[in-house]
Amino acid sequence: MSDVAAWIAVDWGSSNLRAWALDADNNVIAQAGSPRGMLGLAPDEFEGTLLELIDGWLPESAEAPLPVLICGMAGARQGWVEAAYLPLNDGTDNVLDRLGSRLTPVTTQDSRLQVQIVPGLCQHGAPNGGNAFDVMRGEETQLIGLIAERPGFSGAVCLPGTHSKWARLGNGRIASFDTFMSGELYKLLRYDSVLKHSLRGDDLSDEAQRGAFLAGIDTVLAAPERLSAELFGIRARDLLDTQLTQDETRGAWLGARLSGLVLGLELAGATASLPTDSQIVLIGADALCQRYRIALEHLGFTVGLEANEEMILTGLGHIRHAAATP
Amino acid sequence: MSDVAAWIAVDWGSSNLRAWALDADNNVIAQAGSPRGMLGLAPDEFEGTLLELIDGWLPESAEAPLPVLICGMAGARQGWVEAAYLPLNDGTDNVLDRLGSRLTPVTTQDSRLQVQIVPGLCQHGAPNGGNAFDVMRGEETQLIGLIAERPGFSGAVCLPGTHSKWARLGNGRIASFDTFMSGELYKLLRYDSVLKHSLRGDDLSDEAQRGAFLAGIDTVLAAPERLSAELFGIRARDLLDTQLTQDETRGAWLGARLSGLVLGLELAGATASLPTDSQIVLIGADALCQRYRIALEHLGFTVGLEANEEMILTGLGHIRHAAATP
Repeated sequence: MSDVAAWIAVDWGSSNLRAWALDADNNVIAQAGSPRGMLGLAPDEFEGTLLELIDGWLPESAEAPLPVLICGMAGARQGWVEAAYLPLNDGTDNVLDRLGSRLTPVTTQDSRLQVQIVPGLCQHGAPNGGNAFDVMRGEETQLIGLIAERPGFSGAVCLPGTHSKWARLGNGRIASFDTFMSGELYKLLRYDSVLKHSLRGDDLSDEAQRGAFLAGIDTVLAAPERLSAELFGIRARDLLDTQLTQDETRGAWLGARLSGLVLGLELAGATASLPTDSQIVLIGADALCQRYRIALEHLGFTVGLEANEEMILTGLGHIRHAAATP
Repeated sequence: MSDVAAWIAVDWGSSNLRAWALDADNNVIAQAGSPRGMLGLAPDEFEGTLLELIDGWLPESAEAPLPVLICGMAGARQGWVEAAYLPLNDGTDNVLDRLGSRLTPVTTQDSRLQVQIVPGLCQHGAPNGGNAFDVMRGEETQLIGLIAERPGFSGAVCLPGTHSKWARLGNGRIASFDTFMSGELYKLLRYDSVLKHSLRGDDLSDEAQRGAFLAGIDTVLAAPERLSAELFGIRARDLLDTQLTQDETRGAWLGARLSGLVLGLELAGATASLPTDSQIVLIGADALCQRYRIALEHLGFTVGLEANEEMILTGLGHIRHAAATP
C-alpha cells in the first residue's frame, strides 16, 4: 500500500460529504467527512469546502493535478456543476461505459485538482415495470459497485433512505428502478402530523415493539388501500386502547407500528412482482438496513447486505477505469 | 318565526367556531362565527369567547337561562370540558337517544347560560368492517342530522376534511365508521415535502388539470401499494417530462395529480366493499365536496350532497329533543 494518493473519491450528498484518498491500487490511504452537504452550499462554495477536507492529500505543485471523482447531489442542477441525468436505456446496454464517457468536468481555481462529476440516471416510460418517470443521483455508483462485486447477481437491490431506490439487476446491467419516498413520508408523519403527540422513537430489539412493527407490515400488505385509515388508527389507538401500556413504551409501540405501516407500503409495492424466495440485496446505513432486513425476512425473502462505503468506492473505481478505457 | 331565541346551537371545531340562535321551532334567527377554534384556547377562555359571539342573544336576567348545545372539538380532552367518547355499539342501538342522555354539562360564570356539550363517538374492534380503533367528534351530530332528514337512507356517508370520516348508515342507525387522514397527508406533501418545489394549487375546472387529477385516481386505484413511488414520480416528472407545459400551469397539473393520488388512495380503501352503483352522500365544505364528487362519479358512484350547516342544526335539534324526552 502506497501513501501517495493516486486519486480522490468523493460521495457528496444532500446533507453531508465524504472523501477518500486512494493509491494506484485503489487502497484507501486517508478519509475525511463533513456535514456540508449540497443543500447548504452555493455553487461557488463547493471548491473551498472540498479543499478544507482534502488539502493535505494534494501534491505541492500543479504539474500533475490529482484526479477527483465525485458522485451524488453535487451534480444536481442546484449543486456545484450540473451533471445531466443519463437516460437508462432498455437495460441491455452497458451503463458503466456510458457513465464513464459522460463525466462532467469541473473547472477549479486550484490547479492541483482535476475534478469530474458522475451523472445521475433517469428513466422514461417505465422500462421493465419501473416508474414511468424516475431519477437517481449517487445510487448509480453504488449499483455499479455491486455489479462489479457480484457480476453474476440477478434480482432486486434496495438502497434505503429518505427516497429509497429499488433497482432490478440482471446480466451485469441495471434493468430498471423505482424510487419510494417512504423515508420522507415517515418523517412528515412522525414529526409534523397529528400523530406526533402519540409517538416516540422505537427500538426493534424490544420484542413488543418488533411485534408492533411486523403487525404494521402485515396490516398494510393485506390492504394497502387502507393506509391513511390505519394511520389515523394510530391516533385512535392512543386515545382508546386500554391494553397498551401507559408508560413511555406506549409511544414507542405506536412509533414501531407507524414505521411498519409506511415501510410495509413500500415493500408491498416494491416486491409485488418478486418471487417470494427471491434474494434482495440491501445497501445503505446499518440501522436502516437492519430494519429493512427484519421486514423482508418476515415476508420470506432472503436478504444480503453490502457495505455502503465499499460499494461507493468500488463503483467510483470502476467508473474511473471505464472513463480511462477508450 | 319568533325573534326570541329559545336555544343556541354551536359547532366548535379545532380552528373555528359558529353559533346560531334558534327560536322554539328551530328557525335560525341569528348567526355568528369566529376563528377562535379549540386549538387556540385554554379551558378558561371558552366562556368569554362564546359570550363575545352570543351576548346580544341572551336574556337580560338569569331567571330562565338560555340552553346552549355545543358539538365538536370543544368537548375534547384539551377543550373546554371533556365530553367523553360514547362507544358505538354494534349498530343496532339508538345512538341518538344515547347521545341525548350523555350530554356533558358545563358550569359557567355567567348564569344566563346553560351549556351542554355533545359527546363524540368511539369505535372498538371494527364492528362491521370499520377501523379497529376510531373516533369522531362533531361528525356524529351531522350524521344524526342526515338520519333525521333521510330516515330511509342506507349506505355510505363521507364527511371530507383534514381527517375524512366515512360512515355506514342503515335502518336509521350508524353501523360503523372509518377515518382517513388524507387531507392532512395532502397538506404535508404539498407544503412540507420535496414535492413542494414542483407544485401549485390546482383548478379542476381546467380540463387538463381535471384529467391529471382523474389519472392520479386511476393510477392509485390500479396499484395502491405503489403510492409512495408514484409520489416521487411527481418530482421526477417535473424534472423529466418534456411533454408537460413549461409555464405556471405545469405546477397546477402536478398538483392535480398529487390530489388525485392521495384522494384516490382514500377512495380505494373507503369504497372497496361498496357495490359500484351505490349512492354516497357527501357532507362538508363546498369546494372539497365537489372534488370528491368528481372523483366518485368518475368511479361510477351516484353522489348526493347535503348542506353542512343544515345537517349540524338538524342534528343538534334532534339531540336536544332526545335529551328532553325521558
